[in-house]
Amino acid sequence: MKLRLGMIGGGQGAFIGAVHRLAAALDGLYELKAGAFSSDAEKSRATGVLLGLAPDRVYASYQEMIAQESQRPETERIQVISIVTPNHMHFEPARLALESGFHVVLDKPMTFSLAEAKQLAEVVAASGKKLCLTHTYSGYPMVKEARQLVAAGALGKIRKVYVEYPQGWLSAFEEGSDNKQAAWRTDPARSGIAGAMGDIGTHAFNLLEYVSGLQVTQLCADINIVVEGRQLDDDGAVLLKLSNGASAVLTASQIAAGEENNVRIRVYGEQGGLEWQQVDANTLLMKWLDRPAEIRRTGTGYVGSFAQHNARTPAGHPEGYLEAFANLYRNFALTVQAELAGETASAEALDYPSIEEGVRGMAFIENVIASGKSDKKWTAFTV
Amino acid sequence: MKLRLGMIGGGQGAFIGAVHRLAAALDGLYELKAGAFSSDAEKSRATGVLLGLAPDRVYASYQEMIAQESQRPETERIQVISIVTPNHMHFEPARLALESGFHVVLDKPMTFSLAEAKQLAEVVAASGKKLCLTHTYSGYPMVKEARQLVAAGALGKIRKVYVEYPQGWLSAFEEGSDNKQAAWRTDPARSGIAGAMGDIGTHAFNLLEYVSGLQVTQLCADINIVVEGRQLDDDGAVLLKLSNGASAVLTASQIAAGEENNVRIRVYGEQGGLEWQQVDANTLLMKWLDRPAEIRRTGTGYVGSFAQHNARTPAGHPEGYLEAFANLYRNFALTVQAELAGETASAEALDYPSIEEGVRGMAFIENVIASGKSDKKWTAFTV
Amino acid sequence: MKLRLGMIGGGQGAFIGAVHRLAAALDGLYELKAGAFSSDAEKSRATGVLLGLAPDRVYASYQEMIAQESQRPETERIQVISIVTPNHMHFEPARLALESGFHVVLDKPMTFSLAEAKQLAEVVAASGKKLCLTHTYSGYPMVKEARQLVAAGALGKIRKVYVEYPQGWLSAFEEGSDNKQAAWRTDPARSGIAGAMGDIGTHAFNLLEYVSGLQVTQLCADINIVVEGRQLDDDGAVLLKLSNGASAVLTASQIAAGEENNVRIRVYGEQGGLEWQQVDANTLLMKWLDRPAEIRRTGTGYVGSFAQHNARTPAGHPEGYLEAFANLYRNFALTVQAELAGETASAEALDYPSIEEGVRGMAFIENVIASGKSDKKWTAFTV
Amino acid sequence: MKLRLGMIGGGQGAFIGAVHRLAAALDGLYELKAGAFSSDAEKSRATGVLLGLAPDRVYASYQEMIAQESQRPETERIQVISIVTPNHMHFEPARLALESGFHVVLDKPMTFSLAEAKQLAEVVAASGKKLCLTHTYSGYPMVKEARQLVAAGALGKIRKVYVEYPQGWLSAFEEGSDNKQAAWRTDPARSGIAGAMGDIGTHAFNLLEYVSGLQVTQLCADINIVVEGRQLDDDGAVLLKLSNGASAVLTASQIAAGEENNVRIRVYGEQGGLEWQQVDANTLLMKWLDRPAEIRRTGTGYVGSFAQHNARTPAGHPEGYLEAFANLYRNFALTVQAELAGETASAEALDYPSIEEGVRGMAFIENVIASGKSDKKWTAFTV
Repeated sequence: MKLRLGMIGGGQGAFIGAVHRLAAALDGLYELKAGAFSSDAEKSRATGVLLGLAPDRVYASYQEMIAQESQRPETERIQVISIVTPNHMHFEPARLALESGFHVVLDKPMTFSLAEAKQLAEVVAASGKKLCLTHTYSGYPMVKEARQLVAAGALGKIRKVYVEYPQGWLSAFEEGSDNKQAAWRTDPARSGIAGAMGDIGTHAFNLLEYVSGLQVTQLCADINIVVEGRQLDDDGAVLLKLSNGASAVLTASQIAAGEENNVRIRVYGEQGGLEWQQVDANTLLMKWLDRPAEIRRTGTGYVGSFAQHNARTPAGHPEGYLEAFANLYRNFALTVQAELAGETASAEALDYPSIEEGVRGMAFIENVIASGKSDKKWTAFTV
Repeated sequence: MKLRLGMIGGGQGAFIGAVHRLAAALDGLYELKAGAFSSDAEKSRATGVLLGLAPDRVYASYQEMIAQESQRPETERIQVISIVTPNHMHFEPARLALESGFHVVLDKPMTFSLAEAKQLAEVVAASGKKLCLTHTYSGYPMVKEARQLVAAGALGKIRKVYVEYPQGWLSAFEEGSDNKQAAWRTDPARSGIAGAMGDIGTHAFNLLEYVSGLQVTQLCADINIVVEGRQLDDDGAVLLKLSNGASAVLTASQIAAGEENNVRIRVYGEQGGLEWQQVDANTLLMKWLDRPAEIRRTGTGYVGSFAQHNARTPAGHPEGYLEAFANLYRNFALTVQAELAGETASAEALDYPSIEEGVRGMAFIENVIASGKSDKKWTAFTV
Repeated sequence: MKLRLGMIGGGQGAFIGAVHRLAAALDGLYELKAGAFSSDAEKSRATGVLLGLAPDRVYASYQEMIAQESQRPETERIQVISIVTPNHMHFEPARLALESGFHVVLDKPMTFSLAEAKQLAEVVAASGKKLCLTHTYSGYPMVKEARQLVAAGALGKIRKVYVEYPQGWLSAFEEGSDNKQAAWRTDPARSGIAGAMGDIGTHAFNLLEYVSGLQVTQLCADINIVVEGRQLDDDGAVLLKLSNGASAVLTASQIAAGEENNVRIRVYGEQGGLEWQQVDANTLLMKWLDRPAEIRRTGTGYVGSFAQHNARTPAGHPEGYLEAFANLYRNFALTVQAELAGETASAEALDYPSIEEGVRGMAFIENVIASGKSDKKWTAFTV
Repeated sequence: MKLRLGMIGGGQGAFIGAVHRLAAALDGLYELKAGAFSSDAEKSRATGVLLGLAPDRVYASYQEMIAQESQRPETERIQVISIVTPNHMHFEPARLALESGFHVVLDKPMTFSLAEAKQLAEVVAASGKKLCLTHTYSGYPMVKEARQLVAAGALGKIRKVYVEYPQGWLSAFEEGSDNKQAAWRTDPARSGIAGAMGDIGTHAFNLLEYVSGLQVTQLCADINIVVEGRQLDDDGAVLLKLSNGASAVLTASQIAAGEENNVRIRVYGEQGGLEWQQVDANTLLMKWLDRPAEIRRTGTGYVGSFAQHNARTPAGHPEGYLEAFANLYRNFALTVQAELAGETASAEALDYPSIEEGVRGMAFIENVIASGKSDKKWTAFTV
């Protein structure tokens, strides 16, 4: 049975709301049944019409949606709520949804502040409900393959990690024009204390910890506002120390003019290194000290159980961003369905980013911004 | 409103049936409501259960599905039927569906023989219903961009086309093992007179004519059965002449050991050339006589209307095979919905492969196999 | 001791003459001592001055050079003569040089006609002197690695070869302008019966036979003159049969607008395939049926003896076209020096293209042009 | 006339000495006439024999070579001395050579310490002789193209630079084995205070300043010794501030297991970005805010005067590391020859790394190591 889905945010013109809907639709595991798509009731209604929802399940506010859906019979009411609003509107809807008995899919960064994140962790724990945080890049089959290989010791002890996230779309003062995406992402009132570091730096941070299986322990950040008039960082570079003593470099920029969105990670251990980048998402390069590098590919028979589980087509049929995003939704659905069936979800299904990753991501934002302002070289990573 | 979809074929273990369902689901424009998933009634039922269909809409045969669905009220019965069976089971279900008033999505190659294809063309014309043939590669945004640029004369007069489709999965005698995909694709009774040329050569042929805007007029084929014991061709290379006097080369192989599925096309005109390959599907290389080559990319602001229309995410978010497949379903849905609404579909929506492409594809199969057997160098391409 | 080198042709403005000089210089195994750089005595002298030759060793004709150098004491006179003139001026100088006791380095295609080539083979045999034919691409370390791996059976029995040589520089009627390179290459009186097939098709043919270790036995050619007014073919595609029953496709074009010079070969056997292309010359891709593809690289410790022998720097220091060319000169020098020392050259040193390759290359030209004019599909490859 | 060259260091088994000889030989502008190849007189003699030098011009020490060559007639004695010894043996030979009236080609890093470098700058100034420092990467045609485009303002004001130099060859404790290259490079007595930062970090630093046309003003370094027992850094990452206010990141590692030598630089300005990497050395990617990225290529007609000047073959004939290295030698020869002829060398010829780059490189080493030890985030870059 499909899980019944409600959505908060994601009205027309919103980029990530549409992505969530495509991702939820792909595998046929969810049915969008309700929505509070905008704080403007009229806009919410219009979006609901476009999406073909029953009019009585399109709401003027998330509070209304949660309240009314809670009244519906258990076999009819929504089971999972996706929250795709700007950062300042994550915590309250998520808290209310969880406390009202709904599972939650939440866009990243998880909350507006670390304090909120820690509070939300308590809510999740108390509610017994599940939360999925959409760190997309961990949904790619070859990213999962990388993690599984590192965990199995294929590279030996990890010594160095480079992770980068270059974008160029904020090279000009876009927030001065009609660009809604730019407007809220550069606005401290809606984004929080970080710009690029929150929007894409958290993705890079998550990817680093996810693939390496290590945690950041110290960091040293150079945080910049490059475009005149901008209120939040649009560029940064960070030196990091990891829990096993290894070091790392993380860069994130939204003023790398001409770059699209090529998230890239390289991990080096005693025996070899690996490289993955989104522009060639179905390839994982494994480089070795004394034998030819290998090209591991999505959909082949030789990849590990996690990569297998997260692919839909045989090798040579490129799976992309929406499939990676859909993997988060799919694994979350499999986990929720297992619970509904009183079963234990597989390790592969349980492998979606959750509240812990969200808390660490918010800690990254606060630590990296603090380090950026500090004259000291190293700032301890505290949660 | 979502279009109500029925499916013929695509029971468990079928590769392409699952692809059709994913593609239809992605944009939320269809709802799978009925199916005759297998000629084995029990298997059909089991697939229906897995897909969460209402039990009374899972049928033991396509005839039963078409008959019973036709009885349902117009607002409830399926509107589009996807046919995803092996080639020998395309024509009859398609004919019956069209004559019973359903629109049809049909996997390629269109029929078992050219004679059937021409007959189906008459059925389509008589029925007034629409048919979409799933030549996936024409659904990629950058393939559409290529076609639009060629049509606009960007390369000048076309002089040379290379198209290739290398696969390695039939390098061994797979049909001797438990491989269902291999079994029917190498069986003349189910595939028709061609193996590789039908299965993937038709894709290459379609891509050639689609991108170049030209038609094949003559061909000279080297058709091989490489693996011992195989009944149909598993490898071939074809020299071709095109309607404007240009020449071309088409290769298709299923014994190119180690190759996945890297369909690739290069087109050269008086002013420059273009290159697209599935492994880097979101890139279209434009090469010029006397200036730097250009990298055109899916999701950017500068691509043409067809590429724009067929992408879902901004540049840098890779769109893959399922998205390309989904574009066929989406454009077909937009066309059908426009008709339902009494409107005219846009040129971009109308740009899906249809009966004409199907007839030419079957003609390609018959001509290429005939040429393969001929001692004469050139065989005229006849339909 | 450096070998003393004389050169015939290669006056100012000649592309390939300069390449020969760079290639001969690189490893310090030759010293250019004499030259007849042009049939115009004044031009020859001017080139000699530029190159810093002693004035009395710059000659007005190759006959004069050969005659006078023969008179010099053995310890002083040139030992090797490089012939870098257009095709119609290969045979006579080569014959005279060999018969006068000089070793010869000869640019490809070897002669003006197959008849000349066979005659030259007799001259070589009778003279006891050595001849090196500059099929550059066989000089690349990774091409040698490919050949060695195929010979060792890494791919199993070879089933399919694709070789291509696309260029765009003759897309316009260059011979109508001041382009000397275009002028002689498109002139039957200087090039012979073939244009593109002679100039670059022979390279592709040589690469095919060199890497696969197989010989062409039949061919079927589509030979085109695309640019109006041109006298020789500027484009062609050829289907081929090989000595073990495998099939192949060879394409060569000089009207592939926007292409530089990306020679590329792919070979498929029962167990896997390999791919090499000049644009990424230090990489050899090995693709396998059921394990990750491998990237073999120049300068690494794991490559075979031939690749090792033909590289100068450690991995990661790109070696290019001049190094490949220099490998021919170097191996030829090592072979000549071994003979001078009464020693046996190593298998690696002896691995340079020679008279046999030259005869087969000329046979290719005559067979492919004959096939292009034939109505029959298959033409037997005859020498 | 060829310049007469002497060499200090570069006995058998030395990597970089052989590279210098190949680079000097390629264009026929130098003739190696003398050498003091080793501090072991016997080894020096043996190398001289191998290289075919006159026995009386193979010396037991550099002092002897300089003394004796100075006695030879001006038309016979060497004119340029290449110094290819380990770092601690750069200054004294260079000083003596310059003061004795010889031009000098010197391997990098220029000296053992910054103090030596500044002293050498005074020697150069006083001697009136020229010095060329072999920062190879600035010799690549496409690196020169990058610099010329940036200088011409193609990218607008520069905002961000990433430069990286990953190697894996010191992943194990190589200095514990028989590896001579590893032995001296990891030995403070021969290398100086830095390992990776001196050996390859200086290359990255030079590339950064060369391409961007900017100077480093502050830095913040994370310097690591990863391999147990090693005495010098084998890995580091540096945050930098540049003279126009832009920021940069530089990484250099010799423990990036599986990496060969892929130096890479990316520069972003207001209008676009550029990317060059050694593994694809003949390509310069230009990325733009709102139009397709461009692929600029060595040997094409559209590149600037510096790229034109530094290439030897038409587009599509890969030029590699030795050609880049040879460009330094060639430009230095052209400059020296112009002086000998009383002419002014062209801007393109004068574009070789020299004493200023050497002083800044040594300042980089001292500043980066100091920063690595500092608790303060930013260290001013002082010379």
